[in-house]
Amino acid sequence: MRDLKGRLDLLSINTATFGYQTGLDETVELLARQGVGGIAPWRKEVEALGADRAARLIRDAGLKVSGYCRTSYFPAATRALRKAAIDDNLKALEDAATLGASCYVAVVGSIGSDNPSLADARQQTLEGLLKLAERARELKVPIALEPLHPMYAGDRSCLCTLAQALDWCDIIDAEQPGSVGVAADVYHLWWDPALETQLARAGERLLAYHVSDWLVPTEDLLTDRGMMGDGVIELPAIRNQVEKAGYTGLVEVEIFSSKNWWQKPPEETLQVCMERFQTSV
Amino acid sequence: MRDLKGRLDLLSINTATFGYQTGLDETVELLARQGVGGIAPWRKEVEALGADRAARLIRDAGLKVSGYCRTSYFPAATRALRKAAIDDNLKALEDAATLGASCYVAVVGSIGSDNPSLADARQQTLEGLLKLAERARELKVPIALEPLHPMYAGDRSCLCTLAQALDWCDIIDAEQPGSVGVAADVYHLWWDPALETQLARAGERLLAYHVSDWLVPTEDLLTDRGMMGDGVIELPAIRNQVEKAGYTGLVEVEIFSSKNWWQKPPEETLQVCMERFQTSV
Repeated sequence: MRDLKGRLDLLSINTATFGYQTGLDETVELLARQGVGGIAPWRKEVEALGADRAARLIRDAGLKVSGYCRTSYFPAATRALRKAAIDDNLKALEDAATLGASCYVAVVGSIGSDNPSLADARQQTLEGLLKLAERARELKVPIALEPLHPMYAGDRSCLCTLAQALDWCDIIDAEQPGSVGVAADVYHLWWDPALETQLARAGERLLAYHVSDWLVPTEDLLTDRGMMGDGVIELPAIRNQVEKAGYTGLVEVEIFSSKNWWQKPPEETLQVCMERFQTSV
Repeated sequence: MRDLKGRLDLLSINTATFGYQTGLDETVELLARQGVGGIAPWRKEVEALGADRAARLIRDAGLKVSGYCRTSYFPAATRALRKAAIDDNLKALEDAATLGASCYVAVVGSIGSDNPSLADARQQTLEGLLKLAERARELKVPIALEPLHPMYAGDRSCLCTLAQALDWCDIIDAEQPGSVGVAADVYHLWWDPALETQLARAGERLLAYHVSDWLVPTEDLLTDRGMMGDGVIELPAIRNQVEKAGYTGLVEVEIFSSKNWWQKPPEETLQVCMERFQTSV
């Protein structure tokens, strides 16, 4: 397993971790000044600047892009809405290529309030992904299927386990080899009794590795993630499995924390991220 | 699939659904008066009356006991605490036999605040279950392993999927045949892409079937379950899979709802349960 001490070049920060308090330019400057290796920006930030300008900013600062966040949801009540989502995702895929992103992260959507059943949502998502895959392959920006925690199955993700994501990769790869892989986020996957087996199965399909921690108690389903070391996830044990599977990329910190970390200045949150990255991941 | 119209004899009510507003005697009387077939009481209620008296009350009212809730948690920081939990569970198993319960429901515990790692919690739980299994077989009260939703993996259950529960059944059954099975609760399992496969695998190991619904949005991790028909779970499709697997027992309603159903009079909640049982399950 890699020793992360002194290896901030292997650390990437998902900009959501700072609660969007700063613009992309300021975030990039902050990360570069501290010697952090990478960034994972969100579409609203990149689209606000324009992809060309955002790409230049990030490149000039010497940062890698560990992932571009994220797809518009695939399942929807009507064919027109589903087509609009695919068109939107095709555009974002171009931006991901402009950014030189390692992957375009797919958070796929689910049932929602007026959407189809879970089974239909899964079918519609797979169809949507198949429509993006050819362009992803041409652009050499693979789509990273990110299974979300099952507590999001009702509204955010009908893709719930790593096994399911890899099953979908098998299907999509058969048509468009190399167009897809997976993003493994410990917050979503840590509980899974099949995790070690599925990480080994994933192998070179691991396109991104995200860390944070699961707090006990957890008080909000969406925005109560913990800093690495503050919760119950055995982060080093899981990273060991990820690296045994062959992953050599950046370790991305992604913390949604409306009551705690999002209330602090980004400089302070970043200092703790850098410290915990070296001691608790 | 069974037609539930007019089949209130197949309905069981977990007493938690009424938010413990009534004593066991009052709850039993209410259910019997409405022609409901079964009840799933909690230990605190039974122990308050004494198991003999509770058993007589329930039997005299003509109710079946679809499950006895529930085990003390198995994982703990010290050997002495783990032994105390097993002793406590052995005593409750006797009470389950006195009640004539179909099963003793195992909600197993997990990491908590000063407890072991997830892997250790799983090992300790399995060891604890093995120690209960012989007595369960002698008493002819099987232990129903209940996998909880993965959002409880940090504090309430290191047992997270039906596949994991069935793997444990394989291990325990090899030593004590017929001593264990599973409780399948839609709230905990509905999201699982492997659900249909694992229900078919479960077969006669299905000892209990619990229903409620997943609300979108869900505002609390523990006490925001929905009434059947108010959420996004495809209840008839899942019951069809359960019955295809061979399940012929009661359908137990178990709703934790501090802000909604627990605020209503039990009579009113029961009326809605009875209606939805016949139309939406």
